[in-house]
Amino acid sequence: MNNLIILSSKYKQYSSIIIQEKLPGLNLVLATDDPGKIRKDTACEIVFGDAPLIRQVLEILPGLQWVQTTWAGVEPLVDPLVRHDYQLTNARHVFGSLMSEYVFGYILQHHRRIIERYLSQKKGIWVEIGYESLQGKKIGLLGVGSIGSHLAFTASHFGLYVKGYTISSQTSTDVDEYFHESQLYKFASGLDFLVNTLPNTDATYHIINEEFLGKLPAHCLLLNIGRGSTIDEIALMKALNSGKLAGAVLDVFEKEPLPLDNPLWKTPNVLITSHTAAHSDPHFIADIFIENFGRYLRNQPLNNLVNFKKGY
Amino acid sequence: MNNLIILSSKYKQYSSIIIQEKLPGLNLVLATDDPGKIRKDTACEIVFGDAPLIRQVLEILPGLQWVQTTWAGVEPLVDPLVRHDYQLTNARHVFGSLMSEYVFGYILQHHRRIIERYLSQKKGIWVEIGYESLQGKKIGLLGVGSIGSHLAFTASHFGLYVKGYTISSQTSTDVDEYFHESQLYKFASGLDFLVNTLPNTDATYHIINEEFLGKLPAHCLLLNIGRGSTIDEIALMKALNSGKLAGAVLDVFEKEPLPLDNPLWKTPNVLITSHTAAHSDPHFIADIFIENFGRYLRNQPLNNLVNFKKGY
Repeated sequence: MNNLIILSSKYKQYSSIIIQEKLPGLNLVLATDDPGKIRKDTACEIVFGDAPLIRQVLEILPGLQWVQTTWAGVEPLVDPLVRHDYQLTNARHVFGSLMSEYVFGYILQHHRRIIERYLSQKKGIWVEIGYESLQGKKIGLLGVGSIGSHLAFTASHFGLYVKGYTISSQTSTDVDEYFHESQLYKFASGLDFLVNTLPNTDATYHIINEEFLGKLPAHCLLLNIGRGSTIDEIALMKALNSGKLAGAVLDVFEKEPLPLDNPLWKTPNVLITSHTAAHSDPHFIADIFIENFGRYLRNQPLNNLVNFKKGY
Repeated sequence: MNNLIILSSKYKQYSSIIIQEKLPGLNLVLATDDPGKIRKDTACEIVFGDAPLIRQVLEILPGLQWVQTTWAGVEPLVDPLVRHDYQLTNARHVFGSLMSEYVFGYILQHHRRIIERYLSQKKGIWVEIGYESLQGKKIGLLGVGSIGSHLAFTASHFGLYVKGYTISSQTSTDVDEYFHESQLYKFASGLDFLVNTLPNTDATYHIINEEFLGKLPAHCLLLNIGRGSTIDEIALMKALNSGKLAGAVLDVFEKEPLPLDNPLWKTPNVLITSHTAAHSDPHFIADIFIENFGRYLRNQPLNNLVNFKKGY
């Protein structure tokens, strides 16, 4: 038998889904959200859960063979200070496809004016609003990691021209043109859509500031699915209020939940979604574990294997 | 020089775009929306325009080498009663991609509740509305012609399971399962999304009737981009009012424009777009002509060539 510990803030949902599956060869030892409940040297080969919690029990589970995380980000586990003598798999591709659905849902709503048409309908107006095809429009991806690459994949499907801004990597073949470091403003020029997927680091803080926003065409739509800290919200509101930007779809904010008195709520052409662009549906994440457990049993290569050295 | 006649209801836009291009080797003889203005035996190798108008001048332009139509439908020209001794190209792929943008814009709006979130935002509510990924959901395509095939292509991109109902053809490899003739109700069963692309014929009249709607799951979203006559609107409203269908996105109607007193306007969960799912943007259509003219000059195979015998 393979002994499993579930260690996640959503341990109730995960254990209920996994117990229902009645996976042969699997013994669920414990499901909890509290690393303190796991005793040293518990017989356990597999842990399924949240990376920051798992980090806290890495050293007390010597028999560990495989860790499946519930998120894409595995920073706490690839840290060189902790052990790497097990197989680590994450949930990266789930988020790519969910983010892609979100981003293209909102791009298409903007492009086809779905909300505007809905409001016309309420007034009983048979209205013909013009539009162009997405084909040949330019999308800029600020950050081309796992999520950015998935967005590039969908953008190519719709015939968009894809500009990608990254620190260094150029792994996605769906990106038509890469930009690095000092080329940020060249990257911004001529974009119809800008999607930010950058994480919160010193280098990305307010990368989207007044100067950067000034380089975007006035008809550009900005979408932020990275971190709130990457955008100077004051500069963003200024650009939107003065018509220098067509709209902003914001899933993340400098302060979350977005305070009720924050003027972003009522800034023209802002659509607010509340950090829900790619929430981790427990069923979806559990499915990754279940699929990977089958592979583990059959000694097949696991999906979404993380390279500890590369860090992803 | 290659003599061109533009014969279209949008002749002004087309001629303005094409004149601006200053295509070497092209001589624009006439641009009009009136076939009566074209004299018999005018020196003309190329006609760019609307199929029903072109049909009226086919026999008086003996030097005709190539016809580029502005729409996908070329029924008047593939008719066995008229000449077929020239190359015929249509605008089919334009509509496929435009329709795909429309259909997936509305599928994603429904799935991610974009309008609902917008209405929440107006009330200043930070709301977390759940959703699942599109992956593995089932889409049914009623009709798998050029447009249906393009929808299947995009559906596959998003990981949907694609069911296709057709008279006979099974050309799209993006369709996971084909259904024919008496299998209509089997086709309908289990669908999360149903898209109708069927044209108006005797066989398709009210194909979506009370009985058919009864076979769809209550959570199914119906989209009609084919013809209005394919849906029994009374039965549709009954299904929507009684919660037996989650929603309907309607671009076409039994009577257009949809009369202001038609109860569809206010039926719950109906989104009405006014026969604009894939309007022919003159620039987009002109680009097909321009690209094909280059191919024509270089003696390369033309894009979107129609097979007269097959009729598409």
